[in-house]
Amino acid sequence: MTLAVSPLDRFTRLVETAPEADVAAALSVRKRQAELTKPRGSLGRLEDITEWLAAWQGRAMPSSDKVLIAIFAGNHGIAARGVSAYPAEVTGQMVANFLAGGAAINQLASTFGLELEIVPIDLHRPTRDITLNAAMGEDECADAMDRGAAVAARDIDLLCIGEMGIGNTTSASAIFHGLLGGAPSQWVGPGTGVEGAALQAKTEVVDLAVRRARGSCPLAPLQVLRQLGGREIAAMAGAIIAARHQRVPVIVDGFVASAAAAIVHYMASGAIDHCLFGHLSAEPAHERALQAIGKRPVLSLDMRLGEGSGAALAAAVVKAAVATHRGMATFDTAAVSRRAGDHDAR
Amino acid sequence: MTLAVSPLDRFTRLVETAPEADVAAALSVRKRQAELTKPRGSLGRLEDITEWLAAWQGRAMPSSDKVLIAIFAGNHGIAARGVSAYPAEVTGQMVANFLAGGAAINQLASTFGLELEIVPIDLHRPTRDITLNAAMGEDECADAMDRGAAVAARDIDLLCIGEMGIGNTTSASAIFHGLLGGAPSQWVGPGTGVEGAALQAKTEVVDLAVRRARGSCPLAPLQVLRQLGGREIAAMAGAIIAARHQRVPVIVDGFVASAAAAIVHYMASGAIDHCLFGHLSAEPAHERALQAIGKRPVLSLDMRLGEGSGAALAAAVVKAAVATHRGMATFDTAAVSRRAGDHDAR
Repeated sequence: MTLAVSPLDRFTRLVETAPEADVAAALSVRKRQAELTKPRGSLGRLEDITEWLAAWQGRAMPSSDKVLIAIFAGNHGIAARGVSAYPAEVTGQMVANFLAGGAAINQLASTFGLELEIVPIDLHRPTRDITLNAAMGEDECADAMDRGAAVAARDIDLLCIGEMGIGNTTSASAIFHGLLGGAPSQWVGPGTGVEGAALQAKTEVVDLAVRRARGSCPLAPLQVLRQLGGREIAAMAGAIIAARHQRVPVIVDGFVASAAAAIVHYMASGAIDHCLFGHLSAEPAHERALQAIGKRPVLSLDMRLGEGSGAALAAAVVKAAVATHRGMATFDTAAVSRRAGDHDAR
Repeated sequence: MTLAVSPLDRFTRLVETAPEADVAAALSVRKRQAELTKPRGSLGRLEDITEWLAAWQGRAMPSSDKVLIAIFAGNHGIAARGVSAYPAEVTGQMVANFLAGGAAINQLASTFGLELEIVPIDLHRPTRDITLNAAMGEDECADAMDRGAAVAARDIDLLCIGEMGIGNTTSASAIFHGLLGGAPSQWVGPGTGVEGAALQAKTEVVDLAVRRARGSCPLAPLQVLRQLGGREIAAMAGAIIAARHQRVPVIVDGFVASAAAAIVHYMASGAIDHCLFGHLSAEPAHERALQAIGKRPVLSLDMRLGEGSGAALAAAVVKAAVATHRGMATFDTAAVSRRAGDHDAR
């Protein structure tokens, strides 16, 4: 008798064997921070971010030169149910816009010197209608995760993950509801701009999809992904899992990208410690979701665009943090007096 | 009989004759935002910032190429009372560090392509001890304000104002207490790191200084500045006032820079509408102060360094906002489908 093996088990094993933070690198950063010409801790989150980056890159002197923004795109069968303010063909049209350089993320990437990679995944093959079927088969889900893992394998210092997919805030809401319970309405919001009866219909879709997927027993996180996710969400989960092994820290974009991160978070304790959450989306359920997984976003700018836009802005903050850490003079080299007591403490 | 004229009256008149926002430029921005390939409003504060910039630059297509960070430095007689964790000579040492490129702000400016101008003001001549005397005479205060105004007269798109001055969080706390009342302790915090008895002494200094300055009658804002401020704070107030006439929008840095902005705010309704507040400082009274003047900061990163650091990071957000506005494709040029109903609305 053979035990059936799921192609998703590979990712479970990757999470189980994930490398830990490099504590020595983090301590080295903290030591240097105390020597730089500023009051201790006065750069606030910039100091925390530098330490986080060093810990997960495994380098005492972290780098942020090679930042890649990967935008994964997928189509959703559920879009046919009118859950989005935009028609499904916009996914492909926006991919063309990304490739032509006309989208918001192109301008943000150019402003901050970030590389952009667009990864459309089988746009001609939407996921199945999640109110009726699992979104993806096991192989399909694993294939999409591999597309994300491939991006993380590149020679980069930092990976920003974002997405495009008409209908995917519905999918993300269903994932959060599937993972975290509560009332469906707690996890549903306007996305690109649905309201009134359409918002109510979106909530019902999430309710139906999660009831169908869950059936009579709770679902493992990767099954929540396969049942309720989209290819772009699976790709982001795969990228997060693989990046950890490559020692590539990850900046997660907004509401939909956070759903991918939440899947990985519930696979094992600490599984997304190498992830920074770029911003708090204006999508109302994002704050609740981040609180549930214990993460504090870097920025809060009322954005709700997706396509990696919040992660790109957070990458600018990371670059600023690293620049201060690498470039600042120390009290000794700049001949700046320390505060009383700090001479002795050295 | 002649009426005594204060040299500060020039600035009162400048505030009274300040130009208003360019409503047509703002409307033009809003119209274009609705055409760009993104759901309406999905860039959140970035869209607000672009509109604000256009309104105060008086240009339908705003620019953020020429961003200047001006750091004004001054010394404070009150520093001799041990209100800071650092000795007074650090002001001059940090000015040397700025000029040598070793401070945090140098790295931030370099990261985001911002120009830096360091303006030390009479460092050999600290302001007087504000518990005993007015910090500055009328001419001294006006001279310092002129130093700020001179910076605003440069050919720039955006001005970030920051400061360096050992003892100046005490001065800023006294200004807020003088303008807004309440208990002195509500406006006093650790600054660069005082605590315990030193923090208590700092609070007493603020209490004494404001009681002395106020005497038996309320003070006009410019007299609060002259009585309790520092040369770098006066320079920032002068820069804010002059920039409005040059159609140069201003990003105000943290706690101390906000004290300069608060002076101008209380001179006339709307007098700082051309100012953006870069970040919420970790100095506890900053949040209370910004609430009192009705301003919402762009960033909140637990920073408390001064020297324009929070304003520089906010300038990166402004650059991102302008880049999206200028560079994005429209629905028509990119052939992206609009949401249902938006075709008719055009």
